[in-house]
Amino acid sequence: MSGLLLVGAGGLAREALAAARAAGAPVLGFLDDDPARHGEVVDGVRVLGGSELVHEHPDAGVLVCVASPVRPTARAKVVARLGLARERYATLVHPAASVAAGVELGEGSIVLAGVVVTAPQRVGAHVVAMPHVLLTHDDAVGDCVILAGRVALAGGVRVGESAYLGAGALVRQGVHIGQEAVIGMGAVVLTDVPAGETWAGVPAARLRRST
Amino acid sequence: MSGLLLVGAGGLAREALAAARAAGAPVLGFLDDDPARHGEVVDGVRVLGGSELVHEHPDAGVLVCVASPVRPTARAKVVARLGLARERYATLVHPAASVAAGVELGEGSIVLAGVVVTAPQRVGAHVVAMPHVLLTHDDAVGDCVILAGRVALAGGVRVGESAYLGAGALVRQGVHIGQEAVIGMGAVVLTDVPAGETWAGVPAARLRRST
Amino acid sequence: MSGLLLVGAGGLAREALAAARAAGAPVLGFLDDDPARHGEVVDGVRVLGGSELVHEHPDAGVLVCVASPVRPTARAKVVARLGLARERYATLVHPAASVAAGVELGEGSIVLAGVVVTAPQRVGAHVVAMPHVLLTHDDAVGDCVILAGRVALAGGVRVGESAYLGAGALVRQGVHIGQEAVIGMGAVVLTDVPAGETWAGVPAARLRRST
Repeated sequence: MSGLLLVGAGGLAREALAAARAAGAPVLGFLDDDPARHGEVVDGVRVLGGSELVHEHPDAGVLVCVASPVRPTARAKVVARLGLARERYATLVHPAASVAAGVELGEGSIVLAGVVVTAPQRVGAHVVAMPHVLLTHDDAVGDCVILAGRVALAGGVRVGESAYLGAGALVRQGVHIGQEAVIGMGAVVLTDVPAGETWAGVPAARLRRST
Repeated sequence: MSGLLLVGAGGLAREALAAARAAGAPVLGFLDDDPARHGEVVDGVRVLGGSELVHEHPDAGVLVCVASPVRPTARAKVVARLGLARERYATLVHPAASVAAGVELGEGSIVLAGVVVTAPQRVGAHVVAMPHVLLTHDDAVGDCVILAGRVALAGGVRVGESAYLGAGALVRQGVHIGQEAVIGMGAVVLTDVPAGETWAGVPAARLRRST
Repeated sequence: MSGLLLVGAGGLAREALAAARAAGAPVLGFLDDDPARHGEVVDGVRVLGGSELVHEHPDAGVLVCVASPVRPTARAKVVARLGLARERYATLVHPAASVAAGVELGEGSIVLAGVVVTAPQRVGAHVVAMPHVLLTHDDAVGDCVILAGRVALAGGVRVGESAYLGAGALVRQGVHIGQEAVIGMGAVVLTDVPAGETWAGVPAARLRRST
């Protein structure tokens, strides 16, 4: 691999750049579909052009650095649009994360500083685990899930594809969070959350069905 | 010490195994009183038999890996039943924990990744500090206390024996949590909690007197 | 620099001492304005005398170790009273903190174990970031701000001078917390907080105007 290409040039992309530097992984550039940003230098790295440039750098490892609680499927859509083979994606684990031996981390996933994964388990592809996220025994996090800073899953929690868990959310043992569900910042989730719903509060309750 | 014996073969035992591997400590096996599990291999380590086997391995260091919010005294009862000399117990501190020089950690205690203990203090025997637990200056955590992931104690907090603090619970400076009390996930504890009671919520209030 | 002088001899000072030891930085002593403590030895280090002694040790690096939610301006007042040149202040970062390359940390600031700063940004002078604090992209923390254990700021949060954020507080993306504001333990702050006000709860709301 010649280096990393970061798709996106916003906050998560900057955090991925810092994590890559901490890990000693070279970053070739940012790719952003906003033409106004092309040529811009962010934290010392250039926005090379649009995301279609992934195809012009076949030796580069790709990381999608897009995350939005408003559009939880945004990440999966970027992955689908790029249409890359799985091998084209890198994984990025900050050296200040603690991931147990035997954890399988899917392609394209990003694990930032302070994250702890306590025991062997499968973590999906294109997952984002922001700082201080905690995954414990027997959790199952699906593809394209975004875990904002300090999300903690007790044991045996399942999180469906493209769900978004807001900062500091706590999830009780054995709970199932459906795909594309959105969990609010600081929520304490004691019961299962159906797919596509938005829950928040202590304890968490449904806010509205997403459209 | 020839290696570790982990009493229990559930989630906490698997997390202790992963921590022991990270620390470079050999694990001889799990011991579980459910005969159906004898011979099972969990994360590459065998369930050797029931907990009475601790007596057949006099050179092994023992760690009780039992934790239950429903029966907060379960841990102390296992310790009492085993009847081992204190020297038979190991302590386990994940290398990704940060424990200040001068902290005294009682025998049989388990400290997982991301835990921070900021200043010298006594931590009891057979305590479990799950990932990201935070102990600050002048705290006093009693024997057999279980601190679930991300529990944070402000300064000068006392926690009585066999109390169970749920994930993410925050405890205000100077508060005293009585023995065998149970604190709910995400609770913010602003006042003293009497022994044996269950408190939850923000701010925490009594749920019911335990029986 | 001949070593550190810690102004204060309470809990934060003890935690700073432990962090300095972990970082390999020698500590000359505590300075405390309570004459009753002069000569006392705390965690192996002596209280040398009152804070005016900073002037008798011109080679020492100074750290103000005072933090109070009741008087959020106490820290700034000590700094003003000492009247030292900026170069007299040290900065202290625990080796178990993860601070991104490119972060500018103002003089006199203290960063304890488990803190994560994800991306380049300016952190003010005399800031205290207690364990597990999380600063993310594009945050701007002002001078003399105190971030208690496990405070997490989402992206683009601004915190005004001498604000005090209680343990575990979560702040939503883009929010502005005014100077000398006080945020309660466990609060989830979704909207801007005016200067000098005290907010708490989930979601956070105003408690009272500070006097």
